Amino acid sequence: MTAIEEGMLDPLGEAESRALLMTAEIGRLAFTDGHGPTVQPFAFALQDTSIVVGVGLLADVRSAIGQTVAFEVDEIDLVHRTGWSVVAVGTLHRAPATTLARADRWPDLPSETGRALRLVIDVRRITGRRLRRVVTRRPRDGSRR
Amino acid sequence: MTAIEEGMLDPLGEAESRALLMTAEIGRLAFTDGHGPTVQPFAFALQDTSIVVGVGLLADVRSAIGQTVAFEVDEIDLVHRTGWSVVAVGTLHRAPATTLARADRWPDLPSETGRALRLVIDVRRITGRRLRRVVTRRPRDGSRR
Repeated sequence: MTAIEEGMLDPLGEAESRALLMTAEIGRLAFTDGHGPTVQPFAFALQDTSIVVGVGLLADVRSAIGQTVAFEVDEIDLVHRTGWSVVAVGTLHRAPATTLARADRWPDLPSETGRALRLVIDVRRITGRRLRRVVTRRPRDGSRR
Repeated sequence: MTAIEEGMLDPLGEAESRALLMTAEIGRLAFTDGHGPTVQPFAFALQDTSIVVGVGLLADVRSAIGQTVAFEVDEIDLVHRTGWSVVAVGTLHRAPATTLARADRWPDLPSETGRALRLVIDVRRITGRRLRRVVTRRPRDGSRR
């Protein structure tokens, strides 16, 4: 018998995905700008089912208001090759006046000192996957038992 | 005078963006699947102007073959609020037979043991930004000098 270590990718339920989302400080927002698809990292906060992102008044992500966007967070252990990733999908809006959550504005730009715009993603769908390691034992000829 | 520390976001040139891309082990691929936009982390390798991604034979990213996709890498220091991000945009293809670069297949799925598909992004555009901290001195009344 030989022991073979492999990755196992498990889908995560919505509750667990949401719980993992809450542990992250930075997420990557995928949207479309004038040049095509792009991804930018942002700090964020959560309010109910919304993700709140603070951006500079001149940030080019403003062009994505109204788009369906994806916001991804992950935590990956490169040494042990384990980790998880969660993706929330929804429409990007300007934050309504009732938004209380305050995301750190990051990046924060000096030309716009003290002023920021809050954007929210109304999350319609949240999915996640966890990668764990499993050890499979097999006969030396390589076929499965 | 008061000292105010702020973030400064500098655009990076293509050469520097490419050099930073070479330092990363994991990137986030933004593509569109049957549910809309999504982002998944992948290990990758570089060959000439292409990004090579190894995926499992059943990976749902296969549905993105032919799409214009964005592949983002970053390194963010949450304590000092500095970092950089780089985005490469191009068309996702099956790797041609001439592709030599071998990306770690990550995630690697046990149901497809030993078999992987290599995909390449023919990078058409690469951009980056660096966030650094600057200290601005201002009179106490808050107006700029």
